[in-house]
This record gives sequence, structure tokens and C-alpha cells, in this order.
Amino acid sequence: MGAVFSADEYRQRISKTKESMKEKGFDLLVISQPANMNYLSGYDGWSFYVHQCLLLHLEQEEPVWLGRGMDANGARLTAFLSEENILEYADDYVQSTVKHPMHFVADVIKEKGWDKSVIGVEMDQFYFTARAYVELERSLPDAKFADANTLVNWVRVVKSEAEVEFIRRAGKIAEKVMDAARNAIKVGARECDAAAAVAYAQYAGTEEYAGDYPAIVPLMMAGEATKAPHLTWTEKVYQDEEAILLELCGAYRRYHAPIARTIYLGKNPPRLLLDTAEVVLEGLSKAMDTVRAGVTAEDVEAAWRKGIAHSKVVKESRIGYSIGVNYPPDWGEQTISFRPGDKTVLEPNMVLHLIPGIWYDEVGFEIDTTFRVTETGYESMYDYPLELFIEG
Amino acid sequence: MGAVFSADEYRQRISKTKESMKEKGFDLLVISQPANMNYLSGYDGWSFYVHQCLLLHLEQEEPVWLGRGMDANGARLTAFLSEENILEYADDYVQSTVKHPMHFVADVIKEKGWDKSVIGVEMDQFYFTARAYVELERSLPDAKFADANTLVNWVRVVKSEAEVEFIRRAGKIAEKVMDAARNAIKVGARECDAAAAVAYAQYAGTEEYAGDYPAIVPLMMAGEATKAPHLTWTEKVYQDEEAILLELCGAYRRYHAPIARTIYLGKNPPRLLLDTAEVVLEGLSKAMDTVRAGVTAEDVEAAWRKGIAHSKVVKESRIGYSIGVNYPPDWGEQTISFRPGDKTVLEPNMVLHLIPGIWYDEVGFEIDTTFRVTETGYESMYDYPLELFIEG
Repeated sequence: MGAVFSADEYRQRISKTKESMKEKGFDLLVISQPANMNYLSGYDGWSFYVHQCLLLHLEQEEPVWLGRGMDANGARLTAFLSEENILEYADDYVQSTVKHPMHFVADVIKEKGWDKSVIGVEMDQFYFTARAYVELERSLPDAKFADANTLVNWVRVVKSEAEVEFIRRAGKIAEKVMDAARNAIKVGARECDAAAAVAYAQYAGTEEYAGDYPAIVPLMMAGEATKAPHLTWTEKVYQDEEAILLELCGAYRRYHAPIARTIYLGKNPPRLLLDTAEVVLEGLSKAMDTVRAGVTAEDVEAAWRKGIAHSKVVKESRIGYSIGVNYPPDWGEQTISFRPGDKTVLEPNMVLHLIPGIWYDEVGFEIDTTFRVTETGYESMYDYPLELFIEG
Repeated sequence: MGAVFSADEYRQRISKTKESMKEKGFDLLVISQPANMNYLSGYDGWSFYVHQCLLLHLEQEEPVWLGRGMDANGARLTAFLSEENILEYADDYVQSTVKHPMHFVADVIKEKGWDKSVIGVEMDQFYFTARAYVELERSLPDAKFADANTLVNWVRVVKSEAEVEFIRRAGKIAEKVMDAARNAIKVGARECDAAAAVAYAQYAGTEEYAGDYPAIVPLMMAGEATKAPHLTWTEKVYQDEEAILLELCGAYRRYHAPIARTIYLGKNPPRLLLDTAEVVLEGLSKAMDTVRAGVTAEDVEAAWRKGIAHSKVVKESRIGYSIGVNYPPDWGEQTISFRPGDKTVLEPNMVLHLIPGIWYDEVGFEIDTTFRVTETGYESMYDYPLELFIEG
């Protein structure tokens, strides 16, 4: 086994992260966000249900991995780190009411003489709990803590060529995933059996590329449930004259290509659905026409907004965000959002997911594009028809 | 749609939670842990990648759901709550650098006149971030905050008859899941295709019961990777004379029945694997013989330890934990652990997962039992042979 990218690629990422640390005045980062840990070390294990982190110090070449003893072999198998940088804590730290893994982290920081530093922690990332912060602060009274919440996330925002290639492969898988959903969703089929076909396609991938688990399970809302995003599936069978929202994804080695489409089963799609689909597709097309290096995220949203201004469609939430490497619960990167006020200037090799979902009380409509920004426009990460699928 | 249990069952859970709150001196709980939210309200959506919570006040009959606007319809569809108890925040709170959803939560607490209360927060649960705590504390200067970390988790620990029935159904699914894995794992098959077959079985469930997504994806370690738990799958094909560790699960409506087994492909399993399997099975059997209402969690672990004392097998980590309703990243409940020092007295209808996994540098071995405690012993949640599967 071994890390999926070259050591050189990880070193470049570390170097970029250190530049950002210097700029913002951090000596040391405590990185608990699993995607950030993966990005800087290659570490890939489902061990984020216990406390773990990387320590990245300005004066250290490699980050140090700290985790539960039983997961150290996983770090040896998947991270590019040398043996001296894999440190394990004993199992009695796990979910204990008296010991906390952050005590171990603080001990390591002290041993290395980093306890008088400015320490950046990821204050609003899941997996760095309130207790983790309190214990770390209490154990290191001489340190100065500051918020480095999305510091690494922002380093991740422009992808390397190798990362883009991973997302293209995820895109190939996404095409198969959506095909699997469309083949499985028929009047009389159970929702859970369609979800199973989707999961099969996600994990199996293509003949060339193994699939990986996406950071979000298949979201498949049918009938009454189309008034809401973020629901999964039930034992119900699909009905004639029913809409189904599909928010799916292809994933390759933790890199994501989300794909969302809407199916209508039946011959009489409601006027509201048809009108909404038409308006949303028009708005999406206007937004995509705007995309190229140099425009801002809010420019893209403004083009969407202008494109649908003639209609009754109202969309109050953001219409998209940056994506890449990730773990549950989210494939979004928590950096760029397509919404008013986001003045991030798009650069080549940013990869974004534009998904203007609409949920009325009667029915919803979802469609999307996952793309890479180029100098002159964008490259779609998959090739799939942009339409409402009416399976009459 | 609607909540999966009766309103009466939710009211009993709320009443038990309030008893614990009174005992510990809390007026109000802020509950962000998705399984705890589900347990007290029925709410079931993949929306925990943004901040959300339930507020449960001693003087309020129902909890109040607070979440992102687009998820309010999901709450209406899945929670037993009345309309007045579903409150939504605007989308510009999402992943903003200036506004935080906890400001909205604090505003609601103030409006309801609860801001001079003793407020319990779940300090070491994922999904309640360090920032969430800091913002909430800063916004409610008159409140007294205290740690209610696993308060609801401990209410969950004894299952109702309805919950046990859900876990039995999850167990039926678990049997199909392990069958699917064993059928798919053959020399020459790709690991990702076997994972796909497992996921298919997990989501499809049985003819009677729809499967649900388990809180942990299939953990499938082959060959070199058997020295580690918590890894997933690759594009590699299974080799002759190779061991495979399977840590899988059946899930029904968010309730879990984990199932773990080990397969050896080939005619010449290494002595170390055979010996380890024999010892672990003996220790597991001794541990299970001890299980009944009235014994402590550490008694069960001690029986395991005594059962393997004659061997060279060493197990430093806990050998099991309580399970039930859950969401990623963990199906463990964070309450009872089978380890020295855990003096929890087992009670009827506790449901536990006993999994003494062993990982050497050469090979690993995993096997488990998921069971309900009874007055006189236990009821296994599935029926599956307890052995090392040698597929010669």
C-alpha cells in the first residue's frame, strides 16, 4: 500500500500550508479535520470517530500523526510519513470520563518544546469538539491559541493536476451511478432497492477505477419527500406520477464528483415541475456561461439570479460550493460559496459544484454541474444530459 | 411519512431524559448529536453537516428543533414535533465567517426566557464544535453552562421493545450482508466489487425490511491491510492464501447490528491465524457465558481475559461497547465499554457489540457477537456461524 500521491506532492501541499501559517502568524497547527489530515499526509482510515490529529509545525518538515494505537498501522499503510512521525495513544484514552486524547496531544506538544507557540486549531470543524478545545487549552497554559478554522481548506481550493485527474475519474463513476439510479427507479420498485443499485455503482466504480464511499450517502427523495433535501430512502415502492430527486456522487480515492438530477415517473408531470425545470436550467446555463478564471463567486450567483429574475422561482440558499477530497458528513470544502458577498476570485483548477436545488411544498427540482475552472471557461467533470428525465 | 415510533414512545424518552436532567441540575439541554436528536424527536436527515440542534427544556413538553431553512420540511416529514417547535435559520448563517448558527440558537433561547438557566451542552460529541460552544457561551452571558456530554446517550442505553425489534430486523439484514460478502470474496475478484455487493445488501435489506445506511461503511481489510482495522477497500484483486477482515453491519431505520468475521482464501492458513482464531473464539465464548443482567461490563471483559490467559494473545483495547440508533461516524453509543474499570451493571434490553479484534503485523482476526442482555443471559441479534471461514 502507501500514500496515493507522490511524496513530492504532499511536500508541496505542506509548503503551501506553511506559507499560509506564516502569513497568519501560526507556529503550529493542530489539524483534526479528516480531509485536511488526508491532504497533508495521505492518511485514510475510518478512525475519525475517535480523536486524532496531525501536528504541523513551521520548523518540522513532515507533520506528526497522533491517533489511537490500533490505527497506527493504518497510518503506516496509507500516509507518506516516516515512522518517527506516527505517534499512538493508549486505548484507555478512548471515550473515557477521566482521560482525554487531547492530554496526550498536549504532552507531545510539550515534549517537542512547542508549548509556548501560537497554536492554530480548527474551531468550527466537526471532529474538533468543544471538549477537545477546552482540554488542549487547559493543558497548555503557555500557548496562545487562535482560530485556524479553514486554513488548510483554503490551501486545498486550487487542485493539482493529479487531484483533477482523480476528480475526472470520480466523474466517470458519477455517470455510471446516475445510470444505475435511472435503471433502477421504476414504478413498483422499492426505494431501498434503487438505493442499493446506486451504492453498488458507487463502490464498484468503473472497470479501470475502483469506486470509493462518497462523504454523503445517496439522497433520494420521492413523492412527498421531494419537498425536502437531505432525506434518504424507505421501503416504499415508486408510484406512477411521482417525482424523484437524486443527489448522488461518484468518488475516487476520497475525491468527489457530485451529480444531481430529477426524474419524473409518469406521463403527466405537474406544470410547476416543468416550469421550474425550465427556469432552473436557464439560470444554470447563464451561471455556467459566466464561469472562467477572474470572475468572482458572487458574479456567478448574480448571473443565475438575473437568469431567473423573469420567473417566480425564488432561491434563498447558496447555489454551490467548492469540492474535492472529503469524508463524511460533507463533500463540500467549506471555502467558496456561490452566494452574494462571496468575492473569491475563481482560479484555474478550482473545482466547484453548482447545484441550484428548489424545494416547494408540492414538489422539488434538483440538477447540477461539477466543473473545473479554466482560463477561458470550465471543464465539466462528467458528461451527462442536463434535463428533467420524464420516464413516461 | 412521519416519525418511525409512536408519539407515546418519544414522550417516554423525553420524560426519562428530563428525570436525568433534574437529577444533574440542568434546566435546558442543547442537543446536537444526531442520534440523540433522532432519539428524542424522530428527526432523520443527512443535514448534520451544518449546525442544528434540539432544545429540551424541563418545562416544555416537546423539544424544539432548530436547523437550516431547507431542512425544516425534512423535520416536518420525519419528526413527531408540532409545527410551532420547528424553527429555521436563514441560509446566510451557513459556513459564514461573520454569522454563526449558534447566534440564532441563542436568540431563540433568549426569546423563550431560558437565558438565565443552567444549560447542558454535549461537550465531547462530534457536531458540537469548539466554535459552537464559544459562540453560544458568548451570546448568553447570564446562562450557566455545564457538560451534559453523554446524558441522552445514557438514557438510550436500555432499549424499548420497539427498539429491540428494529435491531432484530437489522440483524436479519446483517446475515444477508455477511452472506453477500462471502459470496463476493473470491480469488481474482476486485475488493471494490465485493464492497459493492456488501453495500447492495446493506441498503436493499430483506424482502420485508428496507436496509438503511450503517454509521460506518464496510471495513474490509485484505492481505497486508489486515494488520489494521478501519481501512476500506481498493481496486486490488483478492489473492490466493490471503486473509480478509470484515467489519460490516446491518442497519434498519438507523438501528445497527454490526457483524464481523474473518475469511481466509486458500488452503494454507498461517499457524498464527489459526491459533489466534482458536484463542479468540474461546475467549469470546467465555465472555458470552458471563453475560446476564446483574454482572458488570468489566466482569465480561475479565472473563474474556481469563479465557485467553493461557495463550500469547494480548488485547489492550476494549472488547466491545453499547450500540443502537446512530449516524456516521460511529455506531457505538459512547456509554458502556467492555474494559477494566467499567462498572456499569448490565440490565435487560441493553444491546451490546462484543468484538475482540486482534491485529498483528503479519495478520489480523476479527469476530463478534451483537446481543441483547436478558435476565438469564442474552439473545443474539443474528444467527451466523462463529468461526474463521477458510475458503480453500
